[in-house]
Amino acid sequence: MDSRRILNKKIPDSTVRRLSHYLRSLEGFEGEGGTVSSEELAARGQTTAAQVRKDLSHFGSFGKRGLGYRVEELRERLGTILGVDRTWRVALVGAGRIGLALFEYPALRSRGYECVAIFDSDLEKVGCLWGDLPIRGPEEFESTLSELDVELVILAIPAAGAQDMAARAVEVGVKGILNFAPIRLNLPPAVSVEDVNLVMELEALSFSITQKEQEG
Amino acid sequence: MDSRRILNKKIPDSTVRRLSHYLRSLEGFEGEGGTVSSEELAARGQTTAAQVRKDLSHFGSFGKRGLGYRVEELRERLGTILGVDRTWRVALVGAGRIGLALFEYPALRSRGYECVAIFDSDLEKVGCLWGDLPIRGPEEFESTLSELDVELVILAIPAAGAQDMAARAVEVGVKGILNFAPIRLNLPPAVSVEDVNLVMELEALSFSITQKEQEG
Repeated sequence: MDSRRILNKKIPDSTVRRLSHYLRSLEGFEGEGGTVSSEELAARGQTTAAQVRKDLSHFGSFGKRGLGYRVEELRERLGTILGVDRTWRVALVGAGRIGLALFEYPALRSRGYECVAIFDSDLEKVGCLWGDLPIRGPEEFESTLSELDVELVILAIPAAGAQDMAARAVEVGVKGILNFAPIRLNLPPAVSVEDVNLVMELEALSFSITQKEQEG
Repeated sequence: MDSRRILNKKIPDSTVRRLSHYLRSLEGFEGEGGTVSSEELAARGQTTAAQVRKDLSHFGSFGKRGLGYRVEELRERLGTILGVDRTWRVALVGAGRIGLALFEYPALRSRGYECVAIFDSDLEKVGCLWGDLPIRGPEEFESTLSELDVELVILAIPAAGAQDMAARAVEVGVKGILNFAPIRLNLPPAVSVEDVNLVMELEALSFSITQKEQEG
């Protein structure tokens, strides 16, 4: 069965996260050429074997009962499903500290996310080089994204300018946005958005701790 | 009804995220002293009025039908529910680029997350000051966490050392961990963990784009 078949159902976010974990686990197995059981994948992903089988069943049939999954085949198919069997051309908007941390994060390039352009509105930064890439001003935004066929934008700017830059990116064909700005972007449903909001992560932690204290 | 009452049911993560959004929206209203309807909160949080009412109903009764919510009261109660009506003492583990971006992120302190200690295993960094705080070596980890009553740890280190540092933190009473290391931490269920994994966020984006391309 083709794991690229059209899916009519929404795959839960939690399933997608676990697929990423399974793929990481399988990379640890690479080169051994053997098989892996749903129990082994479950143990590494801190879930259950039944959950592993259910997660994978969204995408067709994998493996054989009692024989497990062929590591190399499952790794390739998970790569295809997650869209990491190819290179994604990424623009970074915001050359501040978070932008720099992302730019220098080695796992991004090794996973196929290639930063091809950097933008900042600060005139003192425009023209500086990060590696081989010049920091460009916002007036070059649309033309650069088009010329370089950028598909993903990482928004690492304050809330104030984020909606505007996101809308401009979508206008020239950007399909996905990783948003570090602490606002909810209002974009057409065809655009994929993932929010990373550090305050909300900390609030989720303090919520959880507060709840547990009350229960205890 | 007391919003600090003991809850026996698990509140979905998505609800907690929306509570953070509602709180942000209400902060924009602060000082006006008026009321806000579930429709207004829904519009700002990009959800529905019914969802707002459902989310808030987990925590007792708020507002009056037809009159909306008193802004100041709802803001205070959301702050209590999310555990942000107090200060949290935080230690940062990892004085690299991500650590520095977090340390200098102004929203953290303004929300009550106060960094009181920084650790790094790099001897060239140990002893340097970030603001008023010295970077400490791992041999001071447990004693410092205990002395300073640290409750939350931000782990901004590579995968290799993360499980060990997390377990050491839990051993001396840390209740929550914001984990940037790309591994799943294996900790007692009483400890709250939130993972921020940038590769997984990007994979969720490329998954979503790939799915939409197949559907289109």
